[in-house]
Amino acid sequence: MTEHAAAYVRQLEEAYSFMASRDDFLVVSHVQPDGDAISSTVLIGWLLGRLGKRAVLVNEGAVPSRLSYLTLADSITCVKEHPLDRSFTHIISIDCADFRRIGIVSQSFAEDAQLLNIDHHPTNDAFGTVNLIRPDAAATVEILYDLIAHQGIELDLEAATAVYTGLLTDTGGFRYSNTTPHVMEIASELLRIGVSGNQLADHLLEKMTMPQLRLLQRALSRLSFTDDGRISWLFIEPADLADTGATGEDLEGLVNYALNVEGVEVGILYKGTEDGHTKVSFRSAGKANVAAVAQTFGGGGHVRAAGCRIEGQVPDVISMVVESVRRALG
Amino acid sequence: MTEHAAAYVRQLEEAYSFMASRDDFLVVSHVQPDGDAISSTVLIGWLLGRLGKRAVLVNEGAVPSRLSYLTLADSITCVKEHPLDRSFTHIISIDCADFRRIGIVSQSFAEDAQLLNIDHHPTNDAFGTVNLIRPDAAATVEILYDLIAHQGIELDLEAATAVYTGLLTDTGGFRYSNTTPHVMEIASELLRIGVSGNQLADHLLEKMTMPQLRLLQRALSRLSFTDDGRISWLFIEPADLADTGATGEDLEGLVNYALNVEGVEVGILYKGTEDGHTKVSFRSAGKANVAAVAQTFGGGGHVRAAGCRIEGQVPDVISMVVESVRRALG
Repeated sequence: MTEHAAAYVRQLEEAYSFMASRDDFLVVSHVQPDGDAISSTVLIGWLLGRLGKRAVLVNEGAVPSRLSYLTLADSITCVKEHPLDRSFTHIISIDCADFRRIGIVSQSFAEDAQLLNIDHHPTNDAFGTVNLIRPDAAATVEILYDLIAHQGIELDLEAATAVYTGLLTDTGGFRYSNTTPHVMEIASELLRIGVSGNQLADHLLEKMTMPQLRLLQRALSRLSFTDDGRISWLFIEPADLADTGATGEDLEGLVNYALNVEGVEVGILYKGTEDGHTKVSFRSAGKANVAAVAQTFGGGGHVRAAGCRIEGQVPDVISMVVESVRRALG
Repeated sequence: MTEHAAAYVRQLEEAYSFMASRDDFLVVSHVQPDGDAISSTVLIGWLLGRLGKRAVLVNEGAVPSRLSYLTLADSITCVKEHPLDRSFTHIISIDCADFRRIGIVSQSFAEDAQLLNIDHHPTNDAFGTVNLIRPDAAATVEILYDLIAHQGIELDLEAATAVYTGLLTDTGGFRYSNTTPHVMEIASELLRIGVSGNQLADHLLEKMTMPQLRLLQRALSRLSFTDDGRISWLFIEPADLADTGATGEDLEGLVNYALNVEGVEVGILYKGTEDGHTKVSFRSAGKANVAAVAQTFGGGGHVRAAGCRIEGQVPDVISMVVESVRRALG
């Protein structure tokens, strides 16, 4: 075993013993939870249940409806709507790169709280009492799979389905560069347990609701390009959401239609808000650092995926932002 | 080992010995070759090269341009354009469910030809002298991977890339129900060899050319539904191809936009031809047997994917076909 691998095993054991030696946990993932956040939350809930521990599963926001099939998903409390009535000493935070990502749930942490921090973001600042951080994991569920497997605990179909869900959503259906040999090995094992990979992929990645379809039709009809075809953008106005019945969640993935056209280096999605601002999402094929572009407008993110919020309505900010991306492309 | 597995191993060995004990092969896959057909062809070419054998790689048609990165892809002769000038006695046919799928290439088979038939289609009628058929394989490349692994021959990066290509295209990017534990195990091994899974997925599944995008914009803007939302269709007229610069290849996948809307049971794509006919593609979510519908119009296919060709222009056939699907849905 390499030193790196040995350090990981030590972290897995420390995290497990944090759970095994305590009781009465508060389990929380990041605000605006995605597939990996919710899958990880229910997996921890499942594991603590197996260990006979009491646990309260929470999130600042609501579980996205498309994830409601997950075991224990309906036992995750939305704290924004149902505030907690007591504080907790034993916290497990999942998929949160820093403390602020926990949101208002942190108001229910006791002063002497001990926190187990499990995450895969490279920027995680190890804010926990105990930290289990593996930046080369594709998803937090991958780390939890390793933790459970290391203890020799067998996954049942519901737990396996949660792991597969987190892998699917965080790897874009096994398509992103974080799709490692280990991810595929785990996926193989989960299918062997009986996970319906095809149904999950259909449900999470292929199927569109009617509002999503109507939104896509509008967005696509407006897809625009710079003359050299290297920058592409689409936009959504508040009226589009009202007319189609779509929600903010339905905007996910739209920007990829801009990025995925051959020759495009940067794809941009503009979303006008009710209060006269424009949210901008950037995706880069690699040549442009869109985090730097977003920063010039007070935003941030990663080299290939970033965002910002600009004062002004969509038609007024488009050319300014495109110009800025053009300079970043050189 | 189960009897089933033992029979498979025997088939793998017979197929290998067919290759090892002969020389001067003609290697052919099916007409209108797809990702699995071309990947399998170059893999056989690669293996025969390793064995020091002479082989001519052919297809009735041309290699789709998006597959040109595959090793040996540029050595596959398009027989429609460059007829063969002699006949062959040792034939390897790949991914062909029956003899007719070989197309005009079969005109170059010697009278005493011996044919090795490698395929994964359940309907394969074992037309070879030696047959290696595994209906539960997701792709023919999966069988070839097993064949090569069973001989203890190591894949290099180029051969591994061909296997990954065939798996990606025949499983819809690891999303169809043929994505078995074994498929994922192989994918894991291929990534370990160094295959750029992310780049291949981007190139083969995510990226759109400008003509494809323009075609999608037109098709989506016309997406229609029956009142109950269970049948959805879109259509493409000959002028659409001319206006957008798209080719027949670019129609692939369009029908899924109809099928993938929530609540849709059958998705239909109509394609008008220059000579006043309409090609119809059906996709079913499972409740309707679209092969039966296609048969009533002289076509055929599978329960969930079928097609037919009808005399008459698009606007004249739409309602008749929708009515027929409605009856099939009951």
